Amino acid sequence: MKTVTIKEDIVSRNNERAKDVRDLTREKGIFYVNVMSSPGAGKTTLLTRLIPLLRERYSVGVIEADIDSDTDALRVERETGVKTIQMHTGGACHITCQMSEEALLALGVEGLDLIFLENIGNLVCPAEFDTGADLNLVLLSVPEGDDKPLKYPLMFEVASAVAVTKTDVSPIFDFDREKARANVARRNPEAPVFFVSAKQNEGVGEIAAFLEERIRGKIG
Amino acid sequence: MKTVTIKEDIVSRNNERAKDVRDLTREKGIFYVNVMSSPGAGKTTLLTRLIPLLRERYSVGVIEADIDSDTDALRVERETGVKTIQMHTGGACHITCQMSEEALLALGVEGLDLIFLENIGNLVCPAEFDTGADLNLVLLSVPEGDDKPLKYPLMFEVASAVAVTKTDVSPIFDFDREKARANVARRNPEAPVFFVSAKQNEGVGEIAAFLEERIRGKIG
Repeated sequence: MKTVTIKEDIVSRNNERAKDVRDLTREKGIFYVNVMSSPGAGKTTLLTRLIPLLRERYSVGVIEADIDSDTDALRVERETGVKTIQMHTGGACHITCQMSEEALLALGVEGLDLIFLENIGNLVCPAEFDTGADLNLVLLSVPEGDDKPLKYPLMFEVASAVAVTKTDVSPIFDFDREKARANVARRNPEAPVFFVSAKQNEGVGEIAAFLEERIRGKIG
Repeated sequence: MKTVTIKEDIVSRNNERAKDVRDLTREKGIFYVNVMSSPGAGKTTLLTRLIPLLRERYSVGVIEADIDSDTDALRVERETGVKTIQMHTGGACHITCQMSEEALLALGVEGLDLIFLENIGNLVCPAEFDTGADLNLVLLSVPEGDDKPLKYPLMFEVASAVAVTKTDVSPIFDFDREKARANVARRNPEAPVFFVSAKQNEGVGEIAAFLEERIRGKIG
């Protein structure tokens, strides 16, 4: 099918460009995290809990990507006090490397150590486009169901780590942790799986510790 | 940006073709419903509750679209007993008109009155591609949040009706019905909004009645 070929060209051209973003963040001593999930899985909430655990040690910045609205950027800025910008994708379902680089430059890379990109809420397309990030943090919320790694394989294949969010409602949704863990492992045996409840403040510290270890590995 | 232009060409070529699908369903006396939402919003569950209310009056068929896995098709067939096929999109994030037509022909259009297409779980891309359906039923699940129509405008603009699902957990998620209704109306003042809990069997009858009225309008 012709459309698929065109798409593959776009993807491969995008992914070749990721090296430029990695060169930029290496040169500036920045660790760059791409946060991906379905809409409403809790990306913004997780950031508002994670950042307070990291901002004393690192100078943090946040790029909020949305098709429309700026509620997330306003909320992150209000709740964490870190430098945040809102990027609008003009209808696009993912962040390309070019958009990623433009957003980094718009945020301003001087003086920052750790930058989070909150990608478009979409469990499909963002997985195809390398943003040049050092790490892909993928969220799976309990209400979505423990079977999602089977249905959306690429997202879990590209995950550096998976955070299962909203675990406080697990009993209501018959969500099976071990099944979720096994389904993630089927797509990606390397990725650690964290179980998080932002409401009950569980598991956020483990993700912060995991990030710190990776950050130290890159920027010391 | 070049990629956007290519994408627009693909979308407009796709949408021109939707007429062929509509000609096919009109000729065969079929009402065709495209069901769209985020991953895990409850499309399959809603179908398993809706179909029993419709299958006495109509001969129903279901097309389950997924990137991978066939759990949904097996479940719909087991729980409703209606003719169901699983379509795999090979990584694609949406259903094109061509895929829609091929799936209809694979399901078999003879002897059916009502066909549901369960689209890929994705609140962005499927909205851009007209499948040739008579009606777009868009689900928004309570755990995703009442702000989603603001962030994913096109999906709510193309909705013929919106079903807010998992309403039984509204208190846990601080979901505001009136805010959700207002946010849908901002994108689409015409679309009726139904509040549904498949667990408590609430609101499913209203959606069935709405569909029946539309079905009568097309195929009598």
